[in-house]
This record gives sequence, C-alpha cells and structure tokens, in this order.
Amino acid sequence: MAATIRDVAQASGVHVSTVSRTFSAPHLVNAETRGRVLAVAEDLGYRPNRAARALTTGRTHNLGLIVADISNPFFPPLIKAAQAHARARDYHVFVADTDEDPQVEEDLIQTLTKQVDGVLLCSPRLSNRVIERLHADVPFVVVNRRVKGMPTVLMDVGQGARLAIEHLTGLGHHRIALLSGPSGSWTSGEMCEAAAATAGVDLVILGPNAPTEQGGLAVVDEVIASGATGVLAYNDLVAIGLIGGLYERGVRVPEDVSVVGVDDIVSGRLNRPKLTTVAMPTAAAGRMAVDLLLQSVNDGATPTRATLETSLIVRESTGEAPR
Amino acid sequence: MAATIRDVAQASGVHVSTVSRTFSAPHLVNAETRGRVLAVAEDLGYRPNRAARALTTGRTHNLGLIVADISNPFFPPLIKAAQAHARARDYHVFVADTDEDPQVEEDLIQTLTKQVDGVLLCSPRLSNRVIERLHADVPFVVVNRRVKGMPTVLMDVGQGARLAIEHLTGLGHHRIALLSGPSGSWTSGEMCEAAAATAGVDLVILGPNAPTEQGGLAVVDEVIASGATGVLAYNDLVAIGLIGGLYERGVRVPEDVSVVGVDDIVSGRLNRPKLTTVAMPTAAAGRMAVDLLLQSVNDGATPTRATLETSLIVRESTGEAPR
Repeated sequence: MAATIRDVAQASGVHVSTVSRTFSAPHLVNAETRGRVLAVAEDLGYRPNRAARALTTGRTHNLGLIVADISNPFFPPLIKAAQAHARARDYHVFVADTDEDPQVEEDLIQTLTKQVDGVLLCSPRLSNRVIERLHADVPFVVVNRRVKGMPTVLMDVGQGARLAIEHLTGLGHHRIALLSGPSGSWTSGEMCEAAAATAGVDLVILGPNAPTEQGGLAVVDEVIASGATGVLAYNDLVAIGLIGGLYERGVRVPEDVSVVGVDDIVSGRLNRPKLTTVAMPTAAAGRMAVDLLLQSVNDGATPTRATLETSLIVRESTGEAPR
Repeated sequence: MAATIRDVAQASGVHVSTVSRTFSAPHLVNAETRGRVLAVAEDLGYRPNRAARALTTGRTHNLGLIVADISNPFFPPLIKAAQAHARARDYHVFVADTDEDPQVEEDLIQTLTKQVDGVLLCSPRLSNRVIERLHADVPFVVVNRRVKGMPTVLMDVGQGARLAIEHLTGLGHHRIALLSGPSGSWTSGEMCEAAAATAGVDLVILGPNAPTEQGGLAVVDEVIASGATGVLAYNDLVAIGLIGGLYERGVRVPEDVSVVGVDDIVSGRLNRPKLTTVAMPTAAAGRMAVDLLLQSVNDGATPTRATLETSLIVRESTGEAPR
C-alpha cells in the first residue's frame, strides 16, 4: 500500500503540515528538516497529489533536461539518475535531444523553458554567451560546462585525463595521441589542456572527432601514421571504434597500441579487450544537478559550482609499451 | 542563410499562403500539396516562426514520446528518427522514460498529455485497458503494441522470430531456447507465439528476463542446463550478455551454441563474434509513428495500423549445430 502523508510525518518526526509544506512551499521549511522529510518520503515511496498541489503553487513540477545526443550511452545513466532523484522529489523530467546541433539546442531551450520549472543543460554545444542570453525565464543548471553566474555541475575530466596519461607514461609510452571530441565540447577542451600540461609526454592531438564508434573508426589511419603507442580517446565509443579499426589493420591492443577511453559505459566493460577508462560520475552528476536546480527553483539561484572527481579504471586495453 | 517562406513556395510551385497554411492549418491543404511543401521545406531547412503560429492555432507544436527505458539502445534510433521527422514538420519531441514501471508510465502520460498535441507510446508496459482509459485528452499513437481503436505502428517481430528459428533449424539445431523478455512486453509475446508455431522444433522458453546484458548473463546456467544448441534472445543486449557469460564458462559461440539477437543495435555489430540478429526497422517506425500522430492531430484519429517488416541479418554468432 502506498505511504500516506501521515506515515511520512511520523517517520520523520514532524507534523503533517510540515510534510505538506515541504512539497508545496519548500522555501518555508528549513533545509535540514526538508532534507529529512524528502529522504523519508523517498524511502517510503510517498507521492503527494500533484494536481492538488499545482493549484496552490502555480508550478508545473516538471523539469527539462537537454542533452547533445540521446544515443550516446554516456547520457542515459545521467538522465535516469536525474529522473529518479527528481521523481522522489515529485518532479517529472522531460528530455530533449539536440542532435549535437546548436540551433536545435537554442530552439528547444526556448520551447522547454515555457513548460517547466527549470532546465538541466547537459554538455551544451551553444556558446556561453548564447546560454547566458537564453537564461531568463526559468532557472538553469549546466552540466559539463562552466557558465558565469549559473549553477554548474562539472566532472573533473582534466584530472581523469592526467591520470590516464600518467598511467600510459608509467607503462613506458612516450608518444601519446589524444583524440579530441566535437568542437564546442568543454570536456574535450579540458582534456587537451590537461594532456598538454603533463610533463614528459610527446603529445599529438588528432581531431575533432565525432563522439561515436564511427568517429573512432575514421581516425584509425591517423593514429597509426602518428606513431603513437598510447591513445587517450575522447570517450569510450571512440575508443571502441578505434580498437575495432586497429584490429582490422592487424594492430593489436594492448600489445602494439594501448587505448584509454573516457566515461565507463557498459559496452567498454563488455568489449574485448575490456576497456581501460576514465570513469565519469554521471549518475552522481545527474542527482547533483537536480539538487542544484531545485534549490534554484525553490530558493532562487546561487551560482554554486559542484566539481565531482573522476577515476581511472585499468582493465585490459592498456599494457607496456612495445620495445 | 536560412530558407524563407518564399523559397519554399517557389520550389514547391505554390503560393506563399499555401506554405503558410501547410504549417498553421494543414487540414485546409490537400494531402498531396501538403506532402510536397513539407518535403521541400525539409530539403531547404525552412523553419516557420513558431511563436507567431502558436498564437493563431492554439497548438503547442510539441509531441510527447514515452519509452520504457532510454538506456536500452533499441530506443535512441527510434527517438532520433521521430525527432528529426517531427522537427521537419515543425514539432518538437519531448521524451520521458518510464523506467519499465507501469505506475510511472501512467503518471507521465497524465502529465505529458496536458503539455503536448499528441503522444507516442513506445513499447508500453501498461495494460491495454489502462491505455484506452488514459487516451482522452490528446491523440495517441502506440508503437510495438496492438491497442483497440488507436493508431498503431508494429514491427513484425513474429515474422523475424520465424526467420531466426528457420535459420537455426536449417543449420541443424533442433533443441532451441527462446529467452523471453519482461512480462507485459508485446514483442516478447509475439516471439513466443511465433516460435511455438514453428514446426519441427524442440522449444524451451526461459524467462522472463530483464532486457539487458545483465538479463543475458543471469540466464547462462539455465541455457547450458537446457541442452539447447540454438538460442533466440529477446534482444541484442540479452544475446551479448549471454555470449559473454557462455565464454566465461568455456562454451564457445557459434562452435558450441548459436545465438540470435533481436534489434540490430550497434553493439551487436561490434561484438565478437558479430551478432546474427533480427533487424527491427526502428527508424522507419519512428517516422511512421510521427506521420500517424500528426494525421490524428490535424485530421482526427483513424485507427490505422502500420506493420513494418523485419529481416534476419546473419553474421558470426550462428553456425552449424555441433555433431
């Protein structure tokens, strides 16, 4: 049986009216109490009556989430975590895909902002200037990009890129190719910057590349021609495509070339060889983004910046440099 | 430079006002002319002014698309095709993910229907009875399910299952395991029915299984215990998980066991061995669903049913039955 507002009140040790306010007028409840009530409500599976509450608040209780490409497996874990976290706070999330097209992104932002209480902008391809201009009607939170005056959730991919390159140099690789991502990608810029700043590396940057297996397949000949024995790819899809293409040309991974991806998608774990990768905390980023967005919606925006750590997962696609 | 309404009018040989009506009041333009104008507009990348048009029509020009699980790679090609097709007709598509949860699905339908002109329901897990009850405010089109009185787009997975089983029997496999999908899945029911109706097969149905790699990994021991030498999996993810799990137990594919998937996702093409699979026309289904939905939005619903053919793609994961 579904939990009632009384169950939530009892379990969190507050009055029923406090539970009610937590959902209908959260700015009137102190942050600690609100946090406790929400946690209990999530545990018990309590769902307030949306229609009744919308009448009193004028809020849609919908959030928009805009992503660059829904078919990139990087995004679904972020989307699903954001969605589950929002749902527990009684918000629905509607997703729109920009197809990596800044014009479509702008259109979608303008349309969505009229229908939701706030927007999560994930890996935007628009320039910061345009994002700032569009940020008018409702609160925004930006994931994977720094935008002035806007709450931001970053995954520290620069740190991950450093870890990956140090891992490669530790294995004796000196000439290292970095496969950059789409132009306009903040992540790609961070990776290039971090790689260029790492000492003792003979770095070649190849790109921009489409952030897909096809992007990896398309850059195979350039990688071979570069003479690099270590590769850091923009993401796991590019790494998987590259490895497939290298095998077709008789180049073995990791015996001849070591390859590191970024993201830690499921396909990388199932790939043969299993992919060494920079794990991105996508689910945590999705939840954090929802938290910051609901803070903005309920208490007004503060340009908080949350930076989440990345980590290197060593599997089978990296090994000692060939002699 | 962006195409203007004049460019579209000239290229399609109609007056400017006809182009305008095609977007603002399509029911006043005959179907042939409307088709021509839309095709030209798509080619030229023409975009009517949404805000101006919404004022005169009272339409949102948004469509909702509800899917069972956005992280299942079956859905993104359908979503992206629907989205591109809708965008060319000046509709935005907002996606919501039900997490395979019928209760969430019902909530999302009720929320979305208030904000869009029509809803595409893909692989619903709700019962037909509930779908019929919810189908009140705006037109629905259902993909991958037959629902009475509602426009439907089906992919003939029964035909594909027959082809797959005939392929296996042709290779000398007699004992065949069918790995079914989630309960409530129409696709799974169609596959079971078709497999059971195929002559000369010693069929064992194992399931229900989660429609994921984990689902495939979890059923490995049952497959081995069943003595089947041929397997038809609910989808490619299940097939990929199964193959990985079989390898870990020293069972080779296709030397010891042949495996066929369903969907033809990219990971199947990159898998080693490359996956034999029933290709589902997901992109075509997405476009067809948008066409039927816009017909309902503009001309009123007619319970059309479009059934798209599936095909078998033979790659490396199937071979002759062991002696």
